[in-house]
Amino acid sequence: MSASPSSIVPPVPPLRPVARAVVLLSGGLDSTTVLALAQQQGYLIHALSFRYGQRHEHELKAAHALAARAGVAHHAVLEINLAQFGGSALTADIPVPKDRSAHDLSTGIPITYVPARNTVFLSLALAYAEVQGAFDIFLGINALDYSGYPDCRPEFLDAFQRLANLATKAGVEGPQKFRIHAPLLHMSKAEIIATGLALGCDYSLTRSCYDPAPDGAACGRCDACQLRLQGFAKNGLSDPAPYASAAA
Amino acid sequence: MSASPSSIVPPVPPLRPVARAVVLLSGGLDSTTVLALAQQQGYLIHALSFRYGQRHEHELKAAHALAARAGVAHHAVLEINLAQFGGSALTADIPVPKDRSAHDLSTGIPITYVPARNTVFLSLALAYAEVQGAFDIFLGINALDYSGYPDCRPEFLDAFQRLANLATKAGVEGPQKFRIHAPLLHMSKAEIIATGLALGCDYSLTRSCYDPAPDGAACGRCDACQLRLQGFAKNGLSDPAPYASAAA
Repeated sequence: MSASPSSIVPPVPPLRPVARAVVLLSGGLDSTTVLALAQQQGYLIHALSFRYGQRHEHELKAAHALAARAGVAHHAVLEINLAQFGGSALTADIPVPKDRSAHDLSTGIPITYVPARNTVFLSLALAYAEVQGAFDIFLGINALDYSGYPDCRPEFLDAFQRLANLATKAGVEGPQKFRIHAPLLHMSKAEIIATGLALGCDYSLTRSCYDPAPDGAACGRCDACQLRLQGFAKNGLSDPAPYASAAA
Repeated sequence: MSASPSSIVPPVPPLRPVARAVVLLSGGLDSTTVLALAQQQGYLIHALSFRYGQRHEHELKAAHALAARAGVAHHAVLEINLAQFGGSALTADIPVPKDRSAHDLSTGIPITYVPARNTVFLSLALAYAEVQGAFDIFLGINALDYSGYPDCRPEFLDAFQRLANLATKAGVEGPQKFRIHAPLLHMSKAEIIATGLALGCDYSLTRSCYDPAPDGAACGRCDACQLRLQGFAKNGLSDPAPYASAAA
């Protein structure tokens, strides 16, 4: 007996609310890849960027273009002047280190560390998530390339997730709990790039340089540029983002 | 034998560096008392206030006057527009509850809860402390009067202190560790007021009302006003701060 016409109509799946996620989007290569990964998992995205007094504000233009390209539900840009506190080469008037060796890149806490930055950013992402009814927060931190940053380590993430569920009405009342997702945590830059390319990321729109030229061209020599250039090279590719003519 | 003149000159104490502390100063009664307690313990004070889109911005004028009166080393006022996220009667266009019963005051999480506010404020205090070389952070949260706020509980403070020492260069490298001090945590409002008066606090300068008149006069009816008025009454005193003529 052949199937009746009605039996080949697929059953209507039960409606379920779309889960929302907050994605910290700097406009760099890592957070752009994380955004693509969160979308692949089916989340409705609330992107969050910060204008925090960083030297490299061109990141924010990139974040805007990347959020628009991804078609996020909302992109919030929060102003928070961490430069008022000083204390980092990214926010204070301290030169950005250039041309550091591979050994220097992998040891110690670099001067580009911004005091408590990831704690501040995750706290604000938590506030935004709670208001939006989101329980999933994604960020692009990485324990391999940035081994020197204390707030890029798994134990930091675990401690923050624990805090989030004690600190908030939504976390305390349940039944859902906040989860901090750092899908790049144990990936090399080359793996991150390969992952993002497979997901259709347009890395020509991303900006990573700590000390770009006024037109936004990357220096090619700071830690962020070096790691990025090596990541593309390991994939047999050249970086599609713009570099100053003397660089790269 | 009588003491020689030289023996009654007290020995010169060895010089030691003054410890710095960051004090979260809202301009309310609680944080003003905490500032006095931190000063009594000998800390050099870096006060930190926030302009976070709150209705009761008159708090900030009070914070400025109180920091000046206390002679703090520095008073930073950081702008951070939490109202951009919405979601609380203190920052969004939601009416502030008035005339709630003693039972209502002590149960549930009130609408004046600002999502993740204390997490955000402590994170920024941590950033400020790390830059200033301070390891002690004081805040005026209270587990009795505000039992409904998840981020006013001891387990929240413990989790944040743990996070702080994982998240920062200063906390990881040691030998000093960050400490979060909440000396009012288990005090009633009446005990807080008695403590502050003994330390010379001028409570006429402090502002607590969630919904003041345009001239800054307190409403006398919101949760914060009610708790404060009761605290003074239990000490046999009237509140020296200004109230709207219809109130108090």
